[in-house]
Amino acid sequence: MERVTAHYYIETPLEIEKAAQILAGEQSSGTFVAVPGETEELKNRFAARVENIQYLETVDEPAIPGIMTAGKKYHRANLEISWSIENFGYNLPVMISTLQGNLYELTQFTGLKLMDIEIPDSFRQHFEGPAFGVAGSRALTRVYDRPMIGTIIKPSIGMSPEQTADLVKTLVTAGIDFIKDDELMSSSANSPFAKRVEAAMRVINEHADKTGKKVMYAFNISNELDEMQRNYDTILAHGGTCAMISLNSVGLAGVKKLCDNRQLCIHGHRNGWGMLNRHPLLGIEFPAYQKLWRLVGVDQIHVNGIQNKFWESDDSVVKSIKSCQKPLLGGYNILPVVSSGQWGGQAPETYRRTQTTDLLYMAGGGILAHPQGASAGVTALKQAWEAAVNGLSIAEAVQQYPEFALSVEKFGKKA
Amino acid sequence: MERVTAHYYIETPLEIEKAAQILAGEQSSGTFVAVPGETEELKNRFAARVENIQYLETVDEPAIPGIMTAGKKYHRANLEISWSIENFGYNLPVMISTLQGNLYELTQFTGLKLMDIEIPDSFRQHFEGPAFGVAGSRALTRVYDRPMIGTIIKPSIGMSPEQTADLVKTLVTAGIDFIKDDELMSSSANSPFAKRVEAAMRVINEHADKTGKKVMYAFNISNELDEMQRNYDTILAHGGTCAMISLNSVGLAGVKKLCDNRQLCIHGHRNGWGMLNRHPLLGIEFPAYQKLWRLVGVDQIHVNGIQNKFWESDDSVVKSIKSCQKPLLGGYNILPVVSSGQWGGQAPETYRRTQTTDLLYMAGGGILAHPQGASAGVTALKQAWEAAVNGLSIAEAVQQYPEFALSVEKFGKKA
Repeated sequence: MERVTAHYYIETPLEIEKAAQILAGEQSSGTFVAVPGETEELKNRFAARVENIQYLETVDEPAIPGIMTAGKKYHRANLEISWSIENFGYNLPVMISTLQGNLYELTQFTGLKLMDIEIPDSFRQHFEGPAFGVAGSRALTRVYDRPMIGTIIKPSIGMSPEQTADLVKTLVTAGIDFIKDDELMSSSANSPFAKRVEAAMRVINEHADKTGKKVMYAFNISNELDEMQRNYDTILAHGGTCAMISLNSVGLAGVKKLCDNRQLCIHGHRNGWGMLNRHPLLGIEFPAYQKLWRLVGVDQIHVNGIQNKFWESDDSVVKSIKSCQKPLLGGYNILPVVSSGQWGGQAPETYRRTQTTDLLYMAGGGILAHPQGASAGVTALKQAWEAAVNGLSIAEAVQQYPEFALSVEKFGKKA
Repeated sequence: MERVTAHYYIETPLEIEKAAQILAGEQSSGTFVAVPGETEELKNRFAARVENIQYLETVDEPAIPGIMTAGKKYHRANLEISWSIENFGYNLPVMISTLQGNLYELTQFTGLKLMDIEIPDSFRQHFEGPAFGVAGSRALTRVYDRPMIGTIIKPSIGMSPEQTADLVKTLVTAGIDFIKDDELMSSSANSPFAKRVEAAMRVINEHADKTGKKVMYAFNISNELDEMQRNYDTILAHGGTCAMISLNSVGLAGVKKLCDNRQLCIHGHRNGWGMLNRHPLLGIEFPAYQKLWRLVGVDQIHVNGIQNKFWESDDSVVKSIKSCQKPLLGGYNILPVVSSGQWGGQAPETYRRTQTTDLLYMAGGGILAHPQGASAGVTALKQAWEAAVNGLSIAEAVQQYPEFALSVEKFGKKA
């Protein structure tokens, strides 16, 4: 019988072997006393199994404060635990309750992070995955030979539909591929969702009629279910190609239901992610997280960026991008969205470390605040990526590309 | 204009006043440069406002490792920040993205926890809240003068529908008020959901026909949306009164959609909670969390229990129960579910500290492992609560109640 395997990074005051058995037992039928009529065979069928233990180190203080006994030592390890798919079938919420669930509350662990999940082949028959992914996002934006270049409507909130449309006009004229709402903005008092879609799509459609290029706008549909579906239909009705959802705020079942429409590209925003990930020994790591959303059918997912303005290290960002690049069940491609404090200057390092242009590369000030205006800003970003792919250093790229050179002059000191 | 106010507990290497302004700015229109046409008035309309700052202490090491500069100090404070409801209206997912969202990722904070949320009166017009809550759960179980007594089907997973029904038979005969599936169990290879509902409800309905008392069974419907609705309808069709949902695994939009049916009592399981709460300076605190689920319409919510087997302190459990007891918008009552390592022995302390019997009190071994069997086990729990309400100590209750005395003999040493 196929099994799902979870990889954990844990810390425990117990012997590691014992802690691993407790983890497996708590999340299956393992530790409970046998009930009358229960055979050993039946118990083994549903018991979680400790597949591997890799001891790492012992420390004097627990990773998460609260449970500390004088003189105790805390042991860290990588664990692999597996479950038969007979336990939860292809039910992702129950799989999550099994692989994570109450584990974070056990006193036997002073730290626990779900690092990765191995999913068996039969999931392919039950989950269609991203309807668009990398190839579909490229086809919709007609960008094939470089990262798609995107930006966020700022200020986050406060602009009217007309002001938004004016900014969209500037951006599409400048040659942008992608625009998105901020996650704070869905329907505000002075910018009702449908009005904003109508105003923005009028500009985008006019531009597409003229040039053949339809810029992708990720309108933030996050809401309750019926309203999300109405918002989704509004985007469709106005010829839009993309909807954004705040994955953690809406939750798995809601996101899945919207993805199942399979008519719009779904831009997955991971705001709230820091709560699930910022502590090194609590929560879930991105390689596990992104697999769940690929099964759900999200097409694009945020991964932060090199030299970002948040707490995340470059190593962690690179690991996230690489996890998106790895095929899941032979495919299920998802487009990594690189954002947070990005301008062209991070392109060479991003490419050097990931060797891919299958990215949606988001920049804010780098476009609108370019000394020669938005068009030059977009040009500078395209140049930065051309230089990156050609292996040029920033200094070499500055020699070759005048717009990029002006970017470096203006934004280079921040990096 | 009405405002939503969030209470945070934060830690920052910056001056607290400055950190508070950054928080407010990041999550609204505050820090961004003005765009052409944007008036100061418009900006103020959507800007988050720092309402209050209470300085707490300064420490030498950051609460969350990762960002640490030699010689830096880290300041802790309580902050109150407010937003106009014009920013997000009555859209809970976008409200969550605004009040939590990217905040956890800011380098300016080495710790951030959302402690509580103040919600203005107008939310009453947009959210119906729990369809059953405390009074509805009591009416369905016909228990009015004490906590409802419940138990969980164990082992968590592995029993067939017939085995489950046999155990249900033992439990309903013993006089139990409430039974629930484990969160690991929804539909397993040897216990398909509909078969289990059919088998368990046959026993429960027979018992109800005979005695007039219909025991509430919380079947775990957690799944994708359509399947959850099918499961919900299956419970209804078999005369069931309750459905359980793993709140964090399913997510807000999915849970809300199911609650909106308003025909079954919704038992909210909070597994995964430790990830959101276990660190003292990361995530969300229960008083904030339970308000969101009350708005969504969850009727019963887990709060852990006194002397529980998890990491949570008694003080934290009491705070959680009290937060459920406080009216929200003048009502929106939710039933706290006390569980984890409970038997009658914790009843006196639970009552002493909360002064309420509006509880669903869950016990496992305390019932089935009672020396005189399950009936005596349920009786012992009812006695424990009678003693608790009458202000008896455990020693006094042992004198008066023989079944409870046997409980104390068997389980008392564990406490």
